[in-house]
Amino acid sequence: MSGEYLRDGTAIYERSFAIIRAEADLARFSPEEADVAVRMIHACGLVEAAAAFRFSPGFVAAARAALAAGAPILCDAEMVAHGVTRARLPAGNEVICTLRDPRTPGLAAELGTTRSAAALELWRDRLGGSVVAVGNAPTSLFHLMDMLGAGAPRPAAVIGMPVGFVGAAESKDALAATDLPHAVVLGRLGGSAMTAAAVNALARAGI
Amino acid sequence: MSGEYLRDGTAIYERSFAIIRAEADLARFSPEEADVAVRMIHACGLVEAAAAFRFSPGFVAAARAALAAGAPILCDAEMVAHGVTRARLPAGNEVICTLRDPRTPGLAAELGTTRSAAALELWRDRLGGSVVAVGNAPTSLFHLMDMLGAGAPRPAAVIGMPVGFVGAAESKDALAATDLPHAVVLGRLGGSAMTAAAVNALARAGI
Repeated sequence: MSGEYLRDGTAIYERSFAIIRAEADLARFSPEEADVAVRMIHACGLVEAAAAFRFSPGFVAAARAALAAGAPILCDAEMVAHGVTRARLPAGNEVICTLRDPRTPGLAAELGTTRSAAALELWRDRLGGSVVAVGNAPTSLFHLMDMLGAGAPRPAAVIGMPVGFVGAAESKDALAATDLPHAVVLGRLGGSAMTAAAVNALARAGI
Repeated sequence: MSGEYLRDGTAIYERSFAIIRAEADLARFSPEEADVAVRMIHACGLVEAAAAFRFSPGFVAAARAALAAGAPILCDAEMVAHGVTRARLPAGNEVICTLRDPRTPGLAAELGTTRSAAALELWRDRLGGSVVAVGNAPTSLFHLMDMLGAGAPRPAAVIGMPVGFVGAAESKDALAATDLPHAVVLGRLGGSAMTAAAVNALARAGI
């Protein structure tokens, strides 16, 4: 029944990326941005999503430099953290998600917000120079901007790609209006897989 | 800047699900299928995706009964496994992913296939009556069907939603042509988040 499918992982990646480059409109991206965009499309299966991708000038260089220097990757969701391919990371970078930290529910109650937002309070001592990867919760991205507005240390780059119907588009518009080096997917699209794919593309060029 | 966003997790879910039900065409689904479809749409941010959802007759009942009876959930990818909300599971069900099992690379070399496919060889003693959740690798879904064709024990239900450009559509077409209780997303769409969302919807009704 299924004897004829492709079984070679590298060949599958190569053919996938070739299809994406043939079908997706990547003309407005730099070559470095296009490499990231291709992996993000690969993660969502939708070449049309590229129209919603925005990279701030210098984002790719800032994120790559931070990762090469050993920056931690701060993730809002376990799915993002588990989508990051450890073997691709250039400096054994830590991948941190504090959502399930035992202090998080108490912080959420105290601050009157979601656990996804409150979890970022536990990032404070790692935030300076970090790479932030928000792929799930708009409240995480809003809370990050609130913390930065109140003087928290600046990350080197922010990947802001929460998915969904309530607050997702607004949170990404707000990030795109800042001067933080950022990558976003405007509108409702996004998610853990696209976010992890962006990290993986930034961590190392090529397959 | 971002002071006015919604911070109550339950309210965010409720508003999201209301938007999805207002916008998505769910008319061809049973009420039980629609509940699953709503969570899948929530995970991908795209109401149009519903057009690609297919549930075999009896799938929802078969999957719910299996989970209630304590069936393990067999996942092709760590992201799927980490997207399953343990607190929703009705019987403390095991969530199993064997991709990183130390035996998997050797099995992949021996079988001449991907690690994602070879990892399923380690499911054999758990496969009978299980709930299978494939959200990443078409080769996993193809390999599952090869194993079943060769006499492996039948799962109670198969969630087959690999995403991508090479083999994804074909693997889901092949699953949909079997008599296994199944849920698929036809075409390129799918992914770990939609797959985990389907499991979470089946595990317990409601938010």
